[in-house]
Amino acid sequence: MTDRVERGFPVEEFEERAERAQRMLADSGLDALLVCTEPEVRYFTGFHTPFWQSPTRPWFVVLPLSGRPIAVIPGIGASAMAGTWVEDVRTWPAPRPDDDGLALLAETLAEHAGPGGRIGLPMGPETHVRMPLADLDALREEIRPKVFVDATHVVRSLRMVKSEREVAKVAHICSVVSDGFEGIPTLLSAEMTEREAFAAFRMDLLRRGADEVPYLVGATGPGFDDIIKQPSDRVIVDGDLVMFDTGSIFDGYSSDFDRYYAFGWADDGARRAYKTVWEATEAGLATVRPGATTSDLWRAMATVLDAGGSLGNSVGRMGHGLGMQVTEWPSNTADDQTVLEEGMVLTLEPGLTWAPGRMMVHEENLVVRAEGAELLSRRAPAELPLIS
Amino acid sequence: MTDRVERGFPVEEFEERAERAQRMLADSGLDALLVCTEPEVRYFTGFHTPFWQSPTRPWFVVLPLSGRPIAVIPGIGASAMAGTWVEDVRTWPAPRPDDDGLALLAETLAEHAGPGGRIGLPMGPETHVRMPLADLDALREEIRPKVFVDATHVVRSLRMVKSEREVAKVAHICSVVSDGFEGIPTLLSAEMTEREAFAAFRMDLLRRGADEVPYLVGATGPGFDDIIKQPSDRVIVDGDLVMFDTGSIFDGYSSDFDRYYAFGWADDGARRAYKTVWEATEAGLATVRPGATTSDLWRAMATVLDAGGSLGNSVGRMGHGLGMQVTEWPSNTADDQTVLEEGMVLTLEPGLTWAPGRMMVHEENLVVRAEGAELLSRRAPAELPLIS
Repeated sequence: MTDRVERGFPVEEFEERAERAQRMLADSGLDALLVCTEPEVRYFTGFHTPFWQSPTRPWFVVLPLSGRPIAVIPGIGASAMAGTWVEDVRTWPAPRPDDDGLALLAETLAEHAGPGGRIGLPMGPETHVRMPLADLDALREEIRPKVFVDATHVVRSLRMVKSEREVAKVAHICSVVSDGFEGIPTLLSAEMTEREAFAAFRMDLLRRGADEVPYLVGATGPGFDDIIKQPSDRVIVDGDLVMFDTGSIFDGYSSDFDRYYAFGWADDGARRAYKTVWEATEAGLATVRPGATTSDLWRAMATVLDAGGSLGNSVGRMGHGLGMQVTEWPSNTADDQTVLEEGMVLTLEPGLTWAPGRMMVHEENLVVRAEGAELLSRRAPAELPLIS
Repeated sequence: MTDRVERGFPVEEFEERAERAQRMLADSGLDALLVCTEPEVRYFTGFHTPFWQSPTRPWFVVLPLSGRPIAVIPGIGASAMAGTWVEDVRTWPAPRPDDDGLALLAETLAEHAGPGGRIGLPMGPETHVRMPLADLDALREEIRPKVFVDATHVVRSLRMVKSEREVAKVAHICSVVSDGFEGIPTLLSAEMTEREAFAAFRMDLLRRGADEVPYLVGATGPGFDDIIKQPSDRVIVDGDLVMFDTGSIFDGYSSDFDRYYAFGWADDGARRAYKTVWEATEAGLATVRPGATTSDLWRAMATVLDAGGSLGNSVGRMGHGLGMQVTEWPSNTADDQTVLEEGMVLTLEPGLTWAPGRMMVHEENLVVRAEGAELLSRRAPAELPLIS
């Protein structure tokens, strides 16, 4: 459980994030940025707590055109926020349903945007506003004639391109999970229930150094098409396939990849499906380079899957961004067209249906380098591995 | 790791939930209910997956005035949703930023609400709308002259009062965590780092039968005022206090309570603070009965804390509802005034500051019965326990 990677970030990391954001705000004619969800607040401040699981209190961070972000938060967070690089921490005694931070937030925004001001707020794909809608509508009235303007592009383009410090954290958790997957053949055995197999794998990942295993799904059986499944009491038998997919965490950064195994033996359909998605991943990996697009990746993988006789899949994309969240912008789809840049961390996730109700989805994690893909997950074996 | 409690729910549970909601919708002159967050979707359908951690895709459930709920969801969820009691599952190939379910949702709403229809949507305290704001604004335009109307009261009053099946799940995880806390004196020792202590406790709770330990915070030292803290590399020394607070999960239901210990010895200030919050909890427990209010609980606890010389605390309330989330409605505050009913599951959480920067917060979990409080957590020891 030795941590080979530094925890947290130096202040320079946050300065760089703020400065990049501030340049984009200025370029977009925005006076400030407002964020209110866990990853955005953590990205700009370093504030890191599982307390976000409590839906009771809204949290706000305002990034002005220069200087450090301002936290407008419930009193319960004051001590933790004071430990970050944020210097201006404003609190109210939440929960206070009559005014859960609205007046304090409106006042803070007024300091940074004039009457005709435009305040950036992420409103586009993959975002939501984490406050009661009635409060949000009231706030929009309250700040008039100032308006909120979509600023998804600011957080999206910043968070998509990772710093080396961020890459190191993802690489570390990918290495821990790769070790875990390699240990599966000695960890699991037929006659275990799905639930026992899940519990054993979760515990094994923690033992190997994952801080948390918040995302763990999987399935067993001769084939399955539910790839976001929770475990049941089904007993694993010889001839079953097993799939685990985990987003495990180190210092707030996530892995996201899966692996398949067969207990004892596998039929030709499953072997061929495995080989096809493995080769689709190869095609995707070979396509990764700065300047290529997410749609190029999608096409490279789709071509192999089609040639392999895929009956389609329900996932809706073939990989995505990865970092503070188990999925992030962009999406590898036919028409996403995001241009790859050095430092982007991506998953490749080709999938096919090889028989009705039987889907197979492989996933690898990588960082985009000048010369192409650098794998962060240890590459899956080329043939479906058997657990004897 | 034996499960003494049934997993999942029979269809009757969901029928009862739907019928209670439908009566309230009708009473409020609403034509349907729209929900889009994890706990609400799970409450009405039984759909249970950690896939919600991916922010990419919105998910919708529409409850009409009669019959089963209708799922309007990304294709990736079709197979899992088909395993629930929901019969009408409508999907689109998400992610599709140009129309991420909006047309399908608008069409579904139009089947259940006429042109002047009113659709309930939770917009009040402790809620948010989990979809991009730009999409939500577009949807509001799209469905005109139909309108969304706040329906927080529907989900709030339903979810606050638990069925016996729900109570059994919370009771089970509270029992697992009580066992874990009782094992702390043999699990931890001075010279461990906070991070090692956290990892040991998390693993111990999983070993004892928790499905997950998503909420774990804690602190060590002679005193502390950050009670939502993540672990550091600080080494525990004799004379330290240690506090752990966990929301652990069994079958989608959460515990939420903490415990304090002292390594070797504790000073009089800490002992007195412990005794005072313990007695405040006693006063809260003695006040619990159907017909009392959350504000009665608050006052009973505040009176003891004030008499004990409290310098205040930053939590903002002294306990809250508990169930599918680590915190739920209502809040025990001076002016919340929610009337307690049989079947409500609550935490009592009195806290005080006994010296500058030194806060102590105790927590217990209970269900409201006709005769008063039934503890779900095993009562904390009356004196600050020492780890020798």
